[in-house]
Amino acid sequence: MINAVVGIDIGGTSTKFGIIDKKGQCLGVNSIRTYQYDKLNKFLEILYKEIQGLNNSLGKEINIKGVGVGAPNGNYYKGTINHPPNLNWKGIVPFVKKFKKYFPDIPVVLTNDANAAAIGEMVYGGAKNMKNIIVITLGTGLGSAFVVDGHLVYGNDGFAGELGHVNVEQNGRICRCGNKGCLEAYVSATGIKRTFFNLLCSRSKKSDLRHVSFNELTSKMIYDAARKGDAVALEAFAITGEILGVKLSDVVAITNPEAIFILGGLAKAGDLIFKPTQQFMEKNLFPVFRGKVKILPSKLKGGNAAVLGAGALAWKELNIR
Amino acid sequence: MINAVVGIDIGGTSTKFGIIDKKGQCLGVNSIRTYQYDKLNKFLEILYKEIQGLNNSLGKEINIKGVGVGAPNGNYYKGTINHPPNLNWKGIVPFVKKFKKYFPDIPVVLTNDANAAAIGEMVYGGAKNMKNIIVITLGTGLGSAFVVDGHLVYGNDGFAGELGHVNVEQNGRICRCGNKGCLEAYVSATGIKRTFFNLLCSRSKKSDLRHVSFNELTSKMIYDAARKGDAVALEAFAITGEILGVKLSDVVAITNPEAIFILGGLAKAGDLIFKPTQQFMEKNLFPVFRGKVKILPSKLKGGNAAVLGAGALAWKELNIR
Repeated sequence: MINAVVGIDIGGTSTKFGIIDKKGQCLGVNSIRTYQYDKLNKFLEILYKEIQGLNNSLGKEINIKGVGVGAPNGNYYKGTINHPPNLNWKGIVPFVKKFKKYFPDIPVVLTNDANAAAIGEMVYGGAKNMKNIIVITLGTGLGSAFVVDGHLVYGNDGFAGELGHVNVEQNGRICRCGNKGCLEAYVSATGIKRTFFNLLCSRSKKSDLRHVSFNELTSKMIYDAARKGDAVALEAFAITGEILGVKLSDVVAITNPEAIFILGGLAKAGDLIFKPTQQFMEKNLFPVFRGKVKILPSKLKGGNAAVLGAGALAWKELNIR
Repeated sequence: MINAVVGIDIGGTSTKFGIIDKKGQCLGVNSIRTYQYDKLNKFLEILYKEIQGLNNSLGKEINIKGVGVGAPNGNYYKGTINHPPNLNWKGIVPFVKKFKKYFPDIPVVLTNDANAAAIGEMVYGGAKNMKNIIVITLGTGLGSAFVVDGHLVYGNDGFAGELGHVNVEQNGRICRCGNKGCLEAYVSATGIKRTFFNLLCSRSKKSDLRHVSFNELTSKMIYDAARKGDAVALEAFAITGEILGVKLSDVVAITNPEAIFILGGLAKAGDLIFKPTQQFMEKNLFPVFRGKVKILPSKLKGGNAAVLGAGALAWKELNIR
């Protein structure tokens, strides 16, 4: 009998989940499509079934001891997901309370998805010996977690770390949160898509993606085109990195981190996004910080930082590590 | 014999100092003009003499047990002032090491001026029961301190809290730090002066200050004019508050504070600065934070938050409170 926990990372597009042992080994992972479920109850039912299916598929006797969840706008104190701009469920979603029905005898804990990724990076990844870091997750939206002196910053209401909603441009792009000009409307998988489309209008350069509709276009297609030298796609990455870099120079001035980890789908573009981000952060840094702040990719293979982090959170809650 | 400490607040224009007893009572205060001293050694000599003079003038037998200093770009860990943009002394200034020569037998501690103000506000002022606050000091520059879960954020190198140097406008106003478009080039005593002068060119409204030169103009004169209804002065305050408010909505998204304290010379303008700041912060806040974050003036009479905070830091260091 192996003791393990379930780590779940809820994103706007997909929800990943894994079964994680005490040593942080991911025994198995799978995912479902978050956006396919308008109703939370249906989503939870399917998620539970899929977790059971994954567990059974492993062919081992596994004793699930706890569940950890990372979710956008997740509130650690209350177990709720509050007004998530990138999910179908609106208002204050009592996630833990509802999901607990499927796990009546074990603890279910929830935190912000970026916080979960930060825990994963600190416990198993590239931030093992760091005390002051920032973690940025570039998925459907832009999530962030701030670690100060070894502790996650939760803030007065448990909602610290909403870097996706700092302002880039007054009266700029409409954001899903209702405000205008938020960072995640520019720097995220959907943000780069908007930038790319904007460039298709404002530039006359050739692009292999001029025949693709807005709905069909994905950040992966922009990435593939950029790798093949598509000039518009390359410019979209350069602009996205520049906007992120300038904003990172601002957050460095506030919390003075040792390193900033950039995770999530868009981070897989590697140099295409890391290089302009580093360059424009460095250029705009307050002099005392220059040359001191590393921008790093996740050190966790398979990009499972948030799943592993949610698992680590569950282990921590169980106090049995 | 009364035990007391010296609290010192070094600003770009003036350096205030006070003698503070165990209960946080300021037994006496005085100040010298910081900018008059090109050489640090001369400044320290005069500062020491003036502290002695103040001590003697009180007509009590006072036993000085420690010295606490708040300074822009002050490094708590190293006792240095590093590349202060608003002071005459350049490079890395070994303040504690040099000042210690005058106080060989007692501890001398130094921190960022805004950190000192935050300690003052937490120990003696309006933040007594708060765990998550931001303190903004509006003097010659813009200083800031971030308190998370009851602790000051120092960051990896001890330089956290440089909100004065986040970017407002790419290729904007030259800042004394060498960058362009920094917040303190817009929101500070010198920032509002620059805004006011800009408005004198771009507006045709009457103003009582059109006969005043740039060098003669002070933020106090803009304040006095605004109180008398001067349209250009009123607009300068409105613009300054708007820029600050928008930036505060960004920092709220990062650290989710309970309250933001605005201190320093420009904060004395009261509603003229607090009202637009609150309005534009609220307007730009990420929805979950709306209506939750208070913007407050210092609760410390005489505006001595930084002097009292530097004193509290010295008492804390002495561990004899």
